[in-house]
Amino acid sequence: MPRKPDPNHTRSNEIIRATIRCLARSGFSQLTMKRLAAEAGVSQGILHYYFRDKRAILAAAAGHVMDDLDLRVKSESANRRDGSSRLRAMIRACLAVATADREFWTVFMALWGESLHDPALASINKAAYQRARNAIGGIIEQGVREGDFMPVNIVHASAMVLALIDGISLQLTFDRNLMTVRKAERLCEEVLFAHIGK
Amino acid sequence: MPRKPDPNHTRSNEIIRATIRCLARSGFSQLTMKRLAAEAGVSQGILHYYFRDKRAILAAAAGHVMDDLDLRVKSESANRRDGSSRLRAMIRACLAVATADREFWTVFMALWGESLHDPALASINKAAYQRARNAIGGIIEQGVREGDFMPVNIVHASAMVLALIDGISLQLTFDRNLMTVRKAERLCEEVLFAHIGK
Repeated sequence: MPRKPDPNHTRSNEIIRATIRCLARSGFSQLTMKRLAAEAGVSQGILHYYFRDKRAILAAAAGHVMDDLDLRVKSESANRRDGSSRLRAMIRACLAVATADREFWTVFMALWGESLHDPALASINKAAYQRARNAIGGIIEQGVREGDFMPVNIVHASAMVLALIDGISLQLTFDRNLMTVRKAERLCEEVLFAHIGK
Repeated sequence: MPRKPDPNHTRSNEIIRATIRCLARSGFSQLTMKRLAAEAGVSQGILHYYFRDKRAILAAAAGHVMDDLDLRVKSESANRRDGSSRLRAMIRACLAVATADREFWTVFMALWGESLHDPALASINKAAYQRARNAIGGIIEQGVREGDFMPVNIVHASAMVLALIDGISLQLTFDRNLMTVRKAERLCEEVLFAHIGK
């Protein structure tokens, strides 16, 4: 029997998608609960029922795009048999997010702009980064265990992998003509395999 | 004879410094010309004489922190005799900026948040990244010429160097307990020398 859709989940998802559209169009500084309610096609009362304020929505949007990235990484790396191809799949999924659709970076750049002066958003951002490093750490740890990678410090290696992927994603976001996504993938693979590969 | 200070330059510098303090305290979304004038201790008329609007000030602030980073890189790498130590000096100067004072990232995160939907700020950010890659490319090119580095594609290699430094700077900005700056420097060196070193 198919699971019934959860109407609350759908409604809050719609609000999050409307938030991302608003952020892409005019940034967090122009986001108001009134504009967002109009974009989402709900009343301001309904909007406030789901989210206390625009900071709470930004936090939910960050969770949403992180979940989405996780799903893409899992789908891309399913059935990969060794550490190198799992790492390669992860790089590909992350760079696709930076270039094919910009939702992830739209949300995170808004989050960063606020998190420097907003401790609650800063801790959400910090936790998102911890989660990303843990996911990468899992791939590296398995690769080390199975003999694909050098026995590296997992925390340090995952910070470096995340740094390179983040950094090149930013440059591709800022300048789409810098290089092809395929080229960026290959360069990340080269740099990272020279570091942790055997 | 010492050069006389340029009063216009000093005044606009004071406004930029006040902007950075405002951004650090409450972000671009809360920045108004009125608040900024009060912070800088100037009238709104004077503020408008120097800068058309808060976007123009954000652009000027980005130029200011980029110039400051350039000076630090140059001072750190002066008298270094080979490519490896010049690259190491550049990494050190960039990571110091990410951790010792947060001005650079305060300005750039504000700029990113706006540049996704503001073409003028996007092109300023894109040019800043081009300038950073060119500076790194100069160090790599000289190192290749003098036999310290492998003969790599300069554009691609400088994109990767910048990516790693940016990415780890972000993680250190978000989470000061992730690792020491010295550790981050050593890891960047390891990863990059494994990629382009001889």
